[in-house]
Amino acid sequence: MNGKNRIYLDHAATSWPKAESVLEAMSRFARECGAAAGRGGYHSAAAADLVVSSLRRSIAQRIGASNSDCISFHPSGTAALNAAIHGLVRPGDHVVVSAADHNSVLRPLNHLAQTQGVRLTIVPTDGSGLVDFQSLIASVAPDTRLVALTHASNVTGAVQPIAELGEFLRSHPAWFLCDAAQTFGTLPISVEDVGIDLLAAPGHKSSGGPLGTAFLYVASQLHRSFVPWMQGGTGSQSESLEMPTTMPLMLEAGNLNVPALAGWADSLQSWQSSEEVRRRMEHAARLSERLHAGLGQIEHLRVHGRAGILPIASVTIEDLAPSDAAAVLDAEFGIETRAGMHCAARIHAHLGTEQGGTLRISAGHTSAEFEIDAVIEALATILSAMHSS
Amino acid sequence: MNGKNRIYLDHAATSWPKAESVLEAMSRFARECGAAAGRGGYHSAAAADLVVSSLRRSIAQRIGASNSDCISFHPSGTAALNAAIHGLVRPGDHVVVSAADHNSVLRPLNHLAQTQGVRLTIVPTDGSGLVDFQSLIASVAPDTRLVALTHASNVTGAVQPIAELGEFLRSHPAWFLCDAAQTFGTLPISVEDVGIDLLAAPGHKSSGGPLGTAFLYVASQLHRSFVPWMQGGTGSQSESLEMPTTMPLMLEAGNLNVPALAGWADSLQSWQSSEEVRRRMEHAARLSERLHAGLGQIEHLRVHGRAGILPIASVTIEDLAPSDAAAVLDAEFGIETRAGMHCAARIHAHLGTEQGGTLRISAGHTSAEFEIDAVIEALATILSAMHSS
Repeated sequence: MNGKNRIYLDHAATSWPKAESVLEAMSRFARECGAAAGRGGYHSAAAADLVVSSLRRSIAQRIGASNSDCISFHPSGTAALNAAIHGLVRPGDHVVVSAADHNSVLRPLNHLAQTQGVRLTIVPTDGSGLVDFQSLIASVAPDTRLVALTHASNVTGAVQPIAELGEFLRSHPAWFLCDAAQTFGTLPISVEDVGIDLLAAPGHKSSGGPLGTAFLYVASQLHRSFVPWMQGGTGSQSESLEMPTTMPLMLEAGNLNVPALAGWADSLQSWQSSEEVRRRMEHAARLSERLHAGLGQIEHLRVHGRAGILPIASVTIEDLAPSDAAAVLDAEFGIETRAGMHCAARIHAHLGTEQGGTLRISAGHTSAEFEIDAVIEALATILSAMHSS
Repeated sequence: MNGKNRIYLDHAATSWPKAESVLEAMSRFARECGAAAGRGGYHSAAAADLVVSSLRRSIAQRIGASNSDCISFHPSGTAALNAAIHGLVRPGDHVVVSAADHNSVLRPLNHLAQTQGVRLTIVPTDGSGLVDFQSLIASVAPDTRLVALTHASNVTGAVQPIAELGEFLRSHPAWFLCDAAQTFGTLPISVEDVGIDLLAAPGHKSSGGPLGTAFLYVASQLHRSFVPWMQGGTGSQSESLEMPTTMPLMLEAGNLNVPALAGWADSLQSWQSSEEVRRRMEHAARLSERLHAGLGQIEHLRVHGRAGILPIASVTIEDLAPSDAAAVLDAEFGIETRAGMHCAARIHAHLGTEQGGTLRISAGHTSAEFEIDAVIEALATILSAMHSS
């Protein structure tokens, strides 16, 4: 465990390093305030409430939501997605989802398919992990309740046609759930402009916040349709055995992790201006281009996808298992990547990587060009050594 | 928001201050490792795995569980209790719970009563928040599936007869769920000795850990009966749309908050020895005695409960609403207490405090005697001023 000499290329799992100011904001809140939010009337408790309400507004503003009551906080992206799916989908409903989606969407839906008779259509992707848009809209039936489409694949980085889907669904009663786990913090998004009804993202990926943070946006018109997936203390209406019926309280049972939210708030401050948002996205796109161009030059290595906005690439190597490649990169070159299925059950059939998955190289907008060059050079060296004998 | 000159008596909500070493352990892990657990093969990811597995063993050892696979981690006590209740209780089941239980137990059970036909019996307490044990065991029917009893009331501090209940349930097929939110870190407990099947506790209360941490113990014989309440990525068996069927993996969808777990692990190190465990408990009991003795001397103030092991007291004051009393304590004396129902819907009917709840004074085992004296003196001063005119 050493922060030095690491080339960290597992940003799609969690971003690293975090800004020192983020860690300091967490510690400072815990040290100087430390009170629980939403439960007390004393000054420190009010200070905790202020952290929460201020972050709610900040997130709402960043995703183009006009009402911050539409933002609830959750301990992880997975929990936010479970709250959305279990909160809305009813027995027998028809749901459309893409094969590019993460298991945090696919598994809750599959659970409901197996236990509640939910009818699930999983739409294929092409060989780069991009959903087949014609299949997607053709799958939407008159009685479809929900369409779930990730903003970008965590396996290939492919950014999905969410604007087109949003446009299509404007004239359809189905709700649109978008998992922005890979994009929040790198790609701008406006839920109201796109027509997204539900958007979830964790704080600890490209938005630079700490683990233990996530938000769910729920459009106002859906609030009355929600059933709280988690029930517990909310610090209000405590005399009732039932959860409050107003957002965001109905989705926030239990103590919020306010120190972590304070850290997340700090990280958001570093990308307040639209210039900084654009700079991040452009840097990420340059890294993506550099990564894919370099990998494309390596013989006996196949890249499953293409350059785009996110600096993510999934590769397979002739005669070298992804897990072995990752182990060599780590042990010999100090480069941290990830091998396997990447918690995405259905995309690999379309990438042709069902056996062993892929080696995923995932940089972030905080990554440097030399890190991209290092992994390309290391892979070229490994492949060259394999094929020189 | 100022750490100085505060007398913090809201420990039942969350403990404060945290040890500096706990905050440092969190920051250090995030800074130096920062990798996600259970998902990668590189060295930093293995270091994250080690934090998790080591803490699992440490928690198991502290609660007298011989198998650390029985310990799953959750982002909050509420999430752990939801995982237990939704994971085990089936439509039509009969469940017994006490009126002393927290809304994190009562509300999930009530939700199942309303949506799944679960039959719920809520057993009364006496005027101190102690469950009526004869009513409790009389409520257990041959077909009762689950009996939930908090280890101690978060409103009055009353420690419940869990050993007696465990003994009674040994010859009954019902499972025993114990919410140890108020006791883990102050009162020793042994799940195997007592016969507890499910035990949940957060890390951020008297065990001194950070927010964002909790565990659930599930006895081995229940593992096959569980259905995962939350579904998502588990970093393993990712090619399947179904959750793994082995504990603890089946309950841990999504990235674990490893920095927070590292902080929790640090806090556990400070009470490894049985001497330290005893010292904590004895100190807490002395504070409880001092608090109740002092409050008992104040006229026009009623204490709902009696001295015990936990330094918690709920009071009501003639002609002064709990919320007003808390506001004066905060503004005039810098003493932080809490007013209201304390997320406990059913205990107040038995305390006679349905109107406005109570003023709760909750110290912790880290509290000092002068802090207890300060709140007693402040309340005496307030009451004296009210009745001198």
